[in-house]
Amino acid sequence: MLIVMKPNASEADIRKIEELIKARGFAAHISRGKINTVIGVVGDKVIHDRRIFEAIDSVQEVIKISSSYKLASRIFKPEDTVIRVKEVEIGGEKIAVIAGPCAVESFEQLESTAEFLSKCGVKLLRGGAFKPRTSPYSFQGLGEEGLKYLKQVADKYNMAIVSEVMEASQIELCVKYVDILQVGARNMQNFNLLRELGYINKPILLKRGLSATIEELLMSAEYIMSGGNRNIILCERGIRTFETATRNTLDISAIPVIKKLSHLPVIADPSHATGLRDKVAPMARAAIAAGADGVTIEVHSSPETALCDGAQSVYHNQFEELYNELKGIAPIIKRKL
Amino acid sequence: MLIVMKPNASEADIRKIEELIKARGFAAHISRGKINTVIGVVGDKVIHDRRIFEAIDSVQEVIKISSSYKLASRIFKPEDTVIRVKEVEIGGEKIAVIAGPCAVESFEQLESTAEFLSKCGVKLLRGGAFKPRTSPYSFQGLGEEGLKYLKQVADKYNMAIVSEVMEASQIELCVKYVDILQVGARNMQNFNLLRELGYINKPILLKRGLSATIEELLMSAEYIMSGGNRNIILCERGIRTFETATRNTLDISAIPVIKKLSHLPVIADPSHATGLRDKVAPMARAAIAAGADGVTIEVHSSPETALCDGAQSVYHNQFEELYNELKGIAPIIKRKL
Amino acid sequence: MLIVMKPNASEADIRKIEELIKARGFAAHISRGKINTVIGVVGDKVIHDRRIFEAIDSVQEVIKISSSYKLASRIFKPEDTVIRVKEVEIGGEKIAVIAGPCAVESFEQLESTAEFLSKCGVKLLRGGAFKPRTSPYSFQGLGEEGLKYLKQVADKYNMAIVSEVMEASQIELCVKYVDILQVGARNMQNFNLLRELGYINKPILLKRGLSATIEELLMSAEYIMSGGNRNIILCERGIRTFETATRNTLDISAIPVIKKLSHLPVIADPSHATGLRDKVAPMARAAIAAGADGVTIEVHSSPETALCDGAQSVYHNQFEELYNELKGIAPIIKRKL
Amino acid sequence: MLIVMKPNASEADIRKIEELIKARGFAAHISRGKINTVIGVVGDKVIHDRRIFEAIDSVQEVIKISSSYKLASRIFKPEDTVIRVKEVEIGGEKIAVIAGPCAVESFEQLESTAEFLSKCGVKLLRGGAFKPRTSPYSFQGLGEEGLKYLKQVADKYNMAIVSEVMEASQIELCVKYVDILQVGARNMQNFNLLRELGYINKPILLKRGLSATIEELLMSAEYIMSGGNRNIILCERGIRTFETATRNTLDISAIPVIKKLSHLPVIADPSHATGLRDKVAPMARAAIAAGADGVTIEVHSSPETALCDGAQSVYHNQFEELYNELKGIAPIIKRKL
Repeated sequence: MLIVMKPNASEADIRKIEELIKARGFAAHISRGKINTVIGVVGDKVIHDRRIFEAIDSVQEVIKISSSYKLASRIFKPEDTVIRVKEVEIGGEKIAVIAGPCAVESFEQLESTAEFLSKCGVKLLRGGAFKPRTSPYSFQGLGEEGLKYLKQVADKYNMAIVSEVMEASQIELCVKYVDILQVGARNMQNFNLLRELGYINKPILLKRGLSATIEELLMSAEYIMSGGNRNIILCERGIRTFETATRNTLDISAIPVIKKLSHLPVIADPSHATGLRDKVAPMARAAIAAGADGVTIEVHSSPETALCDGAQSVYHNQFEELYNELKGIAPIIKRKL
Repeated sequence: MLIVMKPNASEADIRKIEELIKARGFAAHISRGKINTVIGVVGDKVIHDRRIFEAIDSVQEVIKISSSYKLASRIFKPEDTVIRVKEVEIGGEKIAVIAGPCAVESFEQLESTAEFLSKCGVKLLRGGAFKPRTSPYSFQGLGEEGLKYLKQVADKYNMAIVSEVMEASQIELCVKYVDILQVGARNMQNFNLLRELGYINKPILLKRGLSATIEELLMSAEYIMSGGNRNIILCERGIRTFETATRNTLDISAIPVIKKLSHLPVIADPSHATGLRDKVAPMARAAIAAGADGVTIEVHSSPETALCDGAQSVYHNQFEELYNELKGIAPIIKRKL
Repeated sequence: MLIVMKPNASEADIRKIEELIKARGFAAHISRGKINTVIGVVGDKVIHDRRIFEAIDSVQEVIKISSSYKLASRIFKPEDTVIRVKEVEIGGEKIAVIAGPCAVESFEQLESTAEFLSKCGVKLLRGGAFKPRTSPYSFQGLGEEGLKYLKQVADKYNMAIVSEVMEASQIELCVKYVDILQVGARNMQNFNLLRELGYINKPILLKRGLSATIEELLMSAEYIMSGGNRNIILCERGIRTFETATRNTLDISAIPVIKKLSHLPVIADPSHATGLRDKVAPMARAAIAAGADGVTIEVHSSPETALCDGAQSVYHNQFEELYNELKGIAPIIKRKL
Repeated sequence: MLIVMKPNASEADIRKIEELIKARGFAAHISRGKINTVIGVVGDKVIHDRRIFEAIDSVQEVIKISSSYKLASRIFKPEDTVIRVKEVEIGGEKIAVIAGPCAVESFEQLESTAEFLSKCGVKLLRGGAFKPRTSPYSFQGLGEEGLKYLKQVADKYNMAIVSEVMEASQIELCVKYVDILQVGARNMQNFNLLRELGYINKPILLKRGLSATIEELLMSAEYIMSGGNRNIILCERGIRTFETATRNTLDISAIPVIKKLSHLPVIADPSHATGLRDKVAPMARAAIAAGADGVTIEVHSSPETALCDGAQSVYHNQFEELYNELKGIAPIIKRKL
């Protein structure tokens, strides 16, 4: 952390800051410029709240430098993290495609979707058992029954399961059935949940919050990693902006930004970001072309009758076409599918 | 809901939409304009996912009309809701001032703050026992011990307690000590928590999420109210925008907007919105001048040593001055303090 | 336009609205739902200010339906607009690559860049002669001299020129040298400039404003088109959001959205959007993969010494690699380069 | 400017940066921390483009410290700037109220409004002669005729005139009639216009752009001031956010932020920010309560028939009530009206 003093700060002002720094167990490194004196805060730990100094009158500005995350940072681990689940690798040379319905609605629905996806070559099956809905009157998911269907179907087609865990109390249940536990955008800063997920040994798919910065996303990954679980897959799923033509704005540039800052794999969710079926394929291609390690796509055999998010679920034939396009793009950026 | 057909939509296209509407149990009301045919969806229930129709090719646009919330709406209950807690009324003629430290740190700290506030005339004491922090290494709150301190101190000074409940599993504990349960901004769409709060009979202070629209805030209030608990106090606490000079942007205009749309009381939290002590008083005055039913202010006797959010906590003398200013503004807008 | 009355609106309230509509030369079409009465405003023209009705007490909401733009809309012209400049087509099967330095700095600089680009196969040379800079102390461009260099160099290598016009008074000068006149993001709603550009017969490259919605961008295109000039190329160049890791957020989803709403060609500008050299290639690939008709890329032989935007200009070898990647992606989405 | 090197940066990397800094005429001041080496760039001038260094691989981050504006900064001029126009002072003890119709429509309309406002005590009359409209089909203003009406009416009632200048070529005309030249939000970064306004000796009312940061607003003020004209009044008029309940979000917190950073007067425009008549009074009160030096309010004797922005224009009786409320709030914050 660097504390920039105002041009007219006196020696006494500088001393006062120095003492405050020392009182918190850090060293102060003073450097005098033509206009401003800058005081560096040096130490092994990190002062988290820079506003303590900002509120002091002689201080012009406080600047954080060492980033708040460490375990998630590429500076501390330069090589890519590759996560293995059953036969699939995420973050390696191969692009990962996660697909399936928004919600598990019935065994038959899930089975037919999985059969289709499996034939396409998909190895990661998604489906929600617990559905957080903005309206109290909407379908809330099948719960454990849904998880059981996922397990049966995934076993039959030799797929791995991705499904959302909504609160700490559900973890125990989820780990029995699910291979990759998803943390939804609204839970990205549910710190209780993050802490508990740090103690399990299954990979976590961590979605970026609607209004979370990339740094906050990495900080949430750090939260989980500090508990011991290092297998985090990050997911860009759209941020809230002033534009309303799409449900959210998929921040594709977050992909190369995260790949530079962190060693963790990054995927994109074009279904939730756009909320519109005909925008899913273009945005999935864009994400892969920008360097994403994978995508997660909502697929439904009959989107018009889906109990959840039908409008953003692609038809089987649309998915097949998209899958082939991604296969074509992969080698151009030295990846495989 | 209104479905606007494209100018070139055929009769067959219109029939298809009509059938889809009827299949969902609604009536279709067709109205032909010079350019577009508009199909009204009429019924007692609400279709929540307009994107089902948006994804159809002959449809130009889908427009929601009946608002998704009903119990929270002023249309269905024109007169203001006034919430009574001990001797205090929130939403009536008198302006409510909630004050106290960000976190309960010790009995002594809380006691001295409460003594001071009580002398000023404050009847609502705030303080966090469970602290959700963005860093895993920060102070996490005193837990139940903190709640006990709150109870002891509040009883002594005849104040009512406002404190945050962070997940459904904490509700039982909180209701034993707390008079008004606060739902934090990050939990505004924690639907599990909202549902459970609908079953208790204590008032809820519901904070607007960082990137939540006013409509979503009212929808979350509806979530709680649909369970039976009608005593909701809404709280504007700043939204995330591109401006970084303040931590968030306190959306003061949300106050008159909400007062028109809903009968529920609305307060503002200038401490969290700005994150900076010297901006708290101007923004508190602004909120009251704009018609807020109250404010919640973080006060600390020694902000420099606060374990949490010290930079946004005002000093005792600053609070006193602000309290007097609010007292002056109140009668100008026909309120009292 | 549709006017939704409040549930408790009286017959008299409805009559009053009806009269206001008729007084403005429109017809009113009344439709009574279970909860709300909806009044359609029917006519050949468009009422632009819906807030006239919104301010009336018995009105719940006012909804615009017929979009404000017509000439730019795909509804009124379903087939793609293809713009021809010298030997290049924009909006057809081939992807258009515009490249060159941010600013024309000297004849030599421009010549060597053009020579290189021409060898790669680039036919559209960009370069700024007038530079709008946020600081009054920065390099402001070479003016007409810069335009002359552009002309000489473009003629030598048989390229077409893209360059920015900054105000109406510069149009006369620019049309003498420039093949495609660019309107910068800050000028997207400079209506004087737009109007004058409607009277010339050279294509316009219209950049989306930093905080402009897609609808506003199309409305600005309409402004030019209503004067007679139908050759507009739209350009997505990043919007301002809360994320600061990139200079702006390139809204890739705007590309498929615009392609659906409008027949005009759409390109992307990854250089200005990201502001960072190493993000240009991933975002250019993403834009093409999402269906853009082209990209505009800043290239400099020595970015470290560039007088303008050096940090976002790619090196020659980086450009060559990117060009080849785009060549690979094109056939996958049934395009050519 | 401070350049933070990556933890693994070598001595050679540090040397390279040092040389780049010196080559640009600055001195380098190196400071080694536990994790990062920080290089300070010291000199009299300012390096404007920090991204030159950001693009270098061994650099972790580049941080600007000395703010880009100087003349506008309170650090360089601690005492408030007070601007005098005819008998009015803006930025002093008295609160300034600017009022009038959105557009000058006719002599009669303007005269009757001015008569009313003058009786209330208003000394600053606003009215647009040139109207930038988003639709090419809307009323575009009366031009010079409108300016003449303003002058006649203002002279009769002894008021000063505030009116918008839309491009550099209009300045000569405007200064003949207008006392305070307004720069609209869309022109905040029209650098040609700003430069020319620096050479005249009439006060400028500079509106914040829809997506401009506070720093950019101050930088635009600097642009004008660097030409010699130091009489700038800043105006907060709403920023674009995700919330659509109001036209824009009036950033009230910008008022205390600017008052701390700059010595220039700051006013607020609640009419344009909210776009809704019934939100104007609450937001005007809020702005004054937050410390604004004034407000600008659109008033119309018959808003329903206004040619421009009728929905946000208040009625005469509403204005009178608001004016009295502001009179009541002023002394509470030690101001007058």
